[in-house]
Amino acid sequence: MADAPTDPAKPTENPAAAAAPAGEEGGEKQSKKGAKKAEAKAKKEAEKARKAAERQAAEAAAKAAGGAGGEDLAKDNYGDVTHKTKVEAERVNLRDVGDEHIGKSIKLRGWVQNSRMQGAKMCFVELRQSGSGNWAIQGVVAASAEGKPVSKQMVKWIGGVNLESYVLVEATVQKPLEPVKSCRVSNYELHITKLYVISAAPEALGMSLAVSNRAISSFDDEDPNAPEAEKAVDDVKAGVEGVSIDNTPSASLSTHLNNPVMHKRAPVQQAIADVRMQTRKLFAEYLESQGFVQFEPPCLIGAASEGGANVFQLPYFEKSACLAQSPQFYKQIEIAGGRGRVFSCFPVFRAENSNTPRHLTEFTGLDLEMEIEENYHEVRDMLENVLMYIFRGLKERCAEAIETVRAVYPSEDFLLPEPGKEVRLTFAEGQKLLREEGPEEFRNVSDDEDMSTPQEKALGALIRKKFNTDFYVLDKFPEGARPFYTLEDPENPKVTNGYDFMMRGQEILSGGQRIHIPSVLEARIRKKGIDPNSPGIKEYVDIFRSAGVPPHGGGGIGLDRVVAWYLNLPSVHLASYYPRTPKRLVP
Amino acid sequence: MADAPTDPAKPTENPAAAAAPAGEEGGEKQSKKGAKKAEAKAKKEAEKARKAAERQAAEAAAKAAGGAGGEDLAKDNYGDVTHKTKVEAERVNLRDVGDEHIGKSIKLRGWVQNSRMQGAKMCFVELRQSGSGNWAIQGVVAASAEGKPVSKQMVKWIGGVNLESYVLVEATVQKPLEPVKSCRVSNYELHITKLYVISAAPEALGMSLAVSNRAISSFDDEDPNAPEAEKAVDDVKAGVEGVSIDNTPSASLSTHLNNPVMHKRAPVQQAIADVRMQTRKLFAEYLESQGFVQFEPPCLIGAASEGGANVFQLPYFEKSACLAQSPQFYKQIEIAGGRGRVFSCFPVFRAENSNTPRHLTEFTGLDLEMEIEENYHEVRDMLENVLMYIFRGLKERCAEAIETVRAVYPSEDFLLPEPGKEVRLTFAEGQKLLREEGPEEFRNVSDDEDMSTPQEKALGALIRKKFNTDFYVLDKFPEGARPFYTLEDPENPKVTNGYDFMMRGQEILSGGQRIHIPSVLEARIRKKGIDPNSPGIKEYVDIFRSAGVPPHGGGGIGLDRVVAWYLNLPSVHLASYYPRTPKRLVP
Repeated sequence: MADAPTDPAKPTENPAAAAAPAGEEGGEKQSKKGAKKAEAKAKKEAEKARKAAERQAAEAAAKAAGGAGGEDLAKDNYGDVTHKTKVEAERVNLRDVGDEHIGKSIKLRGWVQNSRMQGAKMCFVELRQSGSGNWAIQGVVAASAEGKPVSKQMVKWIGGVNLESYVLVEATVQKPLEPVKSCRVSNYELHITKLYVISAAPEALGMSLAVSNRAISSFDDEDPNAPEAEKAVDDVKAGVEGVSIDNTPSASLSTHLNNPVMHKRAPVQQAIADVRMQTRKLFAEYLESQGFVQFEPPCLIGAASEGGANVFQLPYFEKSACLAQSPQFYKQIEIAGGRGRVFSCFPVFRAENSNTPRHLTEFTGLDLEMEIEENYHEVRDMLENVLMYIFRGLKERCAEAIETVRAVYPSEDFLLPEPGKEVRLTFAEGQKLLREEGPEEFRNVSDDEDMSTPQEKALGALIRKKFNTDFYVLDKFPEGARPFYTLEDPENPKVTNGYDFMMRGQEILSGGQRIHIPSVLEARIRKKGIDPNSPGIKEYVDIFRSAGVPPHGGGGIGLDRVVAWYLNLPSVHLASYYPRTPKRLVP
Repeated sequence: MADAPTDPAKPTENPAAAAAPAGEEGGEKQSKKGAKKAEAKAKKEAEKARKAAERQAAEAAAKAAGGAGGEDLAKDNYGDVTHKTKVEAERVNLRDVGDEHIGKSIKLRGWVQNSRMQGAKMCFVELRQSGSGNWAIQGVVAASAEGKPVSKQMVKWIGGVNLESYVLVEATVQKPLEPVKSCRVSNYELHITKLYVISAAPEALGMSLAVSNRAISSFDDEDPNAPEAEKAVDDVKAGVEGVSIDNTPSASLSTHLNNPVMHKRAPVQQAIADVRMQTRKLFAEYLESQGFVQFEPPCLIGAASEGGANVFQLPYFEKSACLAQSPQFYKQIEIAGGRGRVFSCFPVFRAENSNTPRHLTEFTGLDLEMEIEENYHEVRDMLENVLMYIFRGLKERCAEAIETVRAVYPSEDFLLPEPGKEVRLTFAEGQKLLREEGPEEFRNVSDDEDMSTPQEKALGALIRKKFNTDFYVLDKFPEGARPFYTLEDPENPKVTNGYDFMMRGQEILSGGQRIHIPSVLEARIRKKGIDPNSPGIKEYVDIFRSAGVPPHGGGGIGLDRVVAWYLNLPSVHLASYYPRTPKRLVP
C-alpha cells in the first residue's frame, strides 16, 4: 500500500496553482479561468514570500547561533552538482535497505518530495527514488558543533532546495526514533552527510505531488460532457461503502494533463501504468502458450475498410491515406497467409467527435484471429480464457498496484465467474432478462436491434445480482447489429456468429466468425447496401478470391477500456499514457 | 531446414501470371506492363487448357477402366464441405506425426500445395498445414477394386482440386516406399480415405507458392531507384561463395505485394516474420530483466517535435495533427515522470519521398531511455548488450528460420565480437581509419561532418576485415551531426555524447545522452538556429522546466533494418509485414 506523501507544513498543494491549459473555451469558462489564473499567481507569490521568510529566519537563526561569517567547513559537501562531482559510497536501492545497512554510508539519488526545517540546525528531507513503485525514505541533515561534515549553512541550503528537485545524497543508514509514517521505507532513515542538486525544480510547481496523487476533481476544462464524467467520479465514491473519501485539494483532468511530469510522478498513475502493461503482457503470454504468433498491422492504409465514417484522412505524397480503425483486414490476411493463429497489440484510430469518458481518438487494440476447426465457440472460448487469464493474473501480480489505485479511486473487487460457470447469454436471452426483470423503460426491447449503453449497463447490474459476476459474454448478436464480414448463423440467419464481451455492464470486446467464402461475403456486402467494388472493399474480397482461406474468427479488445473498467476508473483517459481526444493532442 | 516445395510436373510458376499492380507508371513501363499482362493472360489460358485436358484424360482413363456409369460407392467421402460435414478421426499436427500413428486413421486440414495424377486410379496430393513453419506431407489417394472407400471418381475429383485450396482429410498414416523429398514430413505418408474442400482456390493463382518462395527478381515496378535494389540482390548472391543460385522463375517485389496471401504463404516470408517477432521479444525480454518498463507513446501529436521536415500532417477536428517521427519526446517525459528505465515498440512515420531498399514511411521503432548514474556509456553499453542478446538469441532460437531464409537469400554468418572485445570507435577514429586505409575517395574525410552512406559501408568493410565483426559502435559524433537535444561532451564541445550502431556497415541505431537542464537545452536550441518558443519545441523545453529531471540517454533501433541487415535481405520491404513506401499503401 503506497502512501500519499503529505506534509501539512507546506501548503503548496493548490490545484489552482497549476499552469492554465491552452485556451479553447469561450465566455463563461474564460472568466472562470481568469479567476483561476489570478488565484494561481497569488499562490505563487505567497509561496515565494514564504520561501524568502524561511531563508531570512534560517539566516537569523544561524547568526544567533554565532555561525555567520565563520568559514563553512562543509562547503564541499553540498551545492549544485557538476560533471566532476563524485560520491564514492555504495549505491543502494530503497526497496533493498535492510538491517545490514545500519551504520553504513550509502549513495542515493532521488527527488526531494518534502522538506521541513526544524530550527536553524536541522532539516528533514523526504527522498523518493525513481522506477516503478513509490519508494521514499526520510532523510535528516543536522549541523554538528564542529561544522563538518554538516554545517549550519549546509542545513540552510538544503532546506531551501525546491521540492521535486533531483539530488545526489551521501548518508548513513540509521533506525528512526519511531517509524516514519509518511514514507514507504518507515523503519530506516538517512543521516545525510552530502547533498548535491543534480537538477533543480522551479520554486513553485505546476501541480504538487500530493495533488497529482488525488482523484481527478473534475473534467470541466477537458470535456463538454463533463457532468457525465463527474457523475462517474461520484458514482465510484458513492458505490463503495466503508471507504472514507479524502476531500483535500485535487485538480481537474486538464490540470493533470497540462502537467505531465507531475501527473506521471503520482504513485496512482504509475500503478495504473503497471496494470496496463501487465495486461498487455498477460494477453501475449497466454496466446503464445496457445500457439499464437504476434504480427504488426499497418497504421497507414489506402482506404477505409470498414466504411468511411470516423476515419482520419491525410495527404500521402500524390495520394490520400487513412489511419486504420482496426487491424481486422490484416488479421485476416495473416490467417489467409497461413499463420493459423495471430495476435497484435497496436494503435488504432477513430475520428469520432465524442467527448465522453469512454472515448479516445487513438487507443490500443489487443486483437486476435484464429482458424476455426469445428465451431466458432472455439474462438469465443479462447477470448474468454485469455481475459480470465488476464483478470486472474492482474489480481496475483498487481495486488500492490491495485491497492495503490484503490486508495485514490475506490472500487469493489472485480467479480469473476468460477471456472466452468462462465456466464454466456445469447443476445435474445439478455433482452428477455431486461424485459422481464429490468427497469420499466426496457420492457419492450427487441431481439433484432442493438443494445444502447443504458440497456447494457442495466443488464450488467441484473447479471451481477443474478450470477455474481462482472464479466460475461453476449453471443448471437442480431444480423442488423453486425458488420458485413460477420457470418450469419447457418441455422438461423436472423442472428450472427458474433459476440460482445462485457465488463461491469460495458462492452470491451466485439468479435465473431468471419465469412471466408468470397461469394457469401459478396452477397452479404450487397445485402448491407455496400458496393462490393468500392475502394477498400474490393481489395478485401479479393483476399478470399486469391486462394482457399480457412474458416476463422476473432475479436478486438480495447486495452484502455479493460484497464479503466477493471480498476473502476472514472475515465479511460486516466488509463492511457497520452490520451488523445477531439480537444487534446498534447503533450 | 525447410524445403521449397517444387513439382516439375506443374509448370504454373511464372511470375508473369501474377495480377498486375495498380497502374502508376508512364510510357515505357506501361508497355512493358502491357506485355506482361498479355503474357499473364496467355499463361492463365494455358493453365485452364491444361486442367481441362487433365480432366478429359482422367475421364477417359476412368472409362477405359470400366468405372464410368457405375454407382459411386465413395460419393460421401469427397466433395465440398458443408457446415454439417464431420470427420471423427483423431486430429494430428504434422510436426507430431510419429511411428505411433502408423496404421491409424487421422484427421488433418491443410492446403493442397501440389497434386499429380498417376493414371486414372491414383493421385499424389501434397498437404501443407497452417501455422509457423513449413509442415507438409505427401498424401496418396488410390481407387480400390471395390470402389470404396475410394472410387475412381473420387480420385479424379481430388486430382482436379485447385492448388492452394483448403481441404479436410481423413487418412491412414503409412511409411512411404522411400523418403518423400518434396515434403518436410518425409518418413510418413497419408493414405487418404476422405477429402472435402473447405475453401476453394481459383483455377490459376496470382502467384504460385514455388514462385513466392524464390528470391525477389526485381524491384522495377515498385521502385524508381530499382538499379540500387537489384544490385543489392546481385551483391547478396555474388558475395556468398559456394552457394548455388536457383535461377528458376521468380517474381518482382510488386507481384509479391500485389499477391499478399501467396506472398505470406511462402516459407521464406514466414521465417522472416518469425525472426522479426523474436527480435521484438528478445528486446523486451532483456530490458525487462534490467528493470525497464514498457510504455506506449502516441502516434498522433500536436506538433513536430524534431522540426517540420518529413512529417505527415492531417486535419484533426478543428486543428491539425502530425504523425510521430519518433517517441523521443515521450520517452523523456516518462523519465522525467519518474519511471527510471523505459522502452517502447511502436510505429513511427516519415513522410520522406525516398524510394530506396532502406526506406519505409511507416516502421517499428524499438526505443529505450534510461537514467544515467555516472556516465552515458552506461546507456551505450545497455544498447550494446541488448543487441548482442538479440543476435545471440536469434542464432539460438531461430536457427531453422535463418536456414529457411538463407535457402532463398544466401548470406554469410553475422559476425559478432567476442564478449569483452566489443568494437567501439570514436567517430574521429572511424574517419581516420577511412583516411588511412579506406578507398581513395575517402582520403580527405573530415572529423566534423557526418558520414555518407558510401563512407559508412566502406568503414564497415574495413572493420570487418580488421576486427572480424559485422556489429560495432561509432561514438562521439560531431556536434553538427546531432540534433538539438544531444548533450555536448563537457570535456570537448566539438563532439557530442552521441553514438550510432552499425550492422554490416549500415546504421541501425542512433542515440546519445540528452540535455536535462533547461537553460543548457535552450542555449543549444538557439545555437542550432531554432526558435525555442516555436510549436512543439516550447512544450519540449517546458518538460525540463516543470521539475528536476535526472540525467538520461537512450537510443532508437529500426526493427525493420535490424531484421533486414541481420538476414542480409536485399530490401527492408521484405522484413516488413505490410511495407509502406511513397508508392505503396496496399494491401
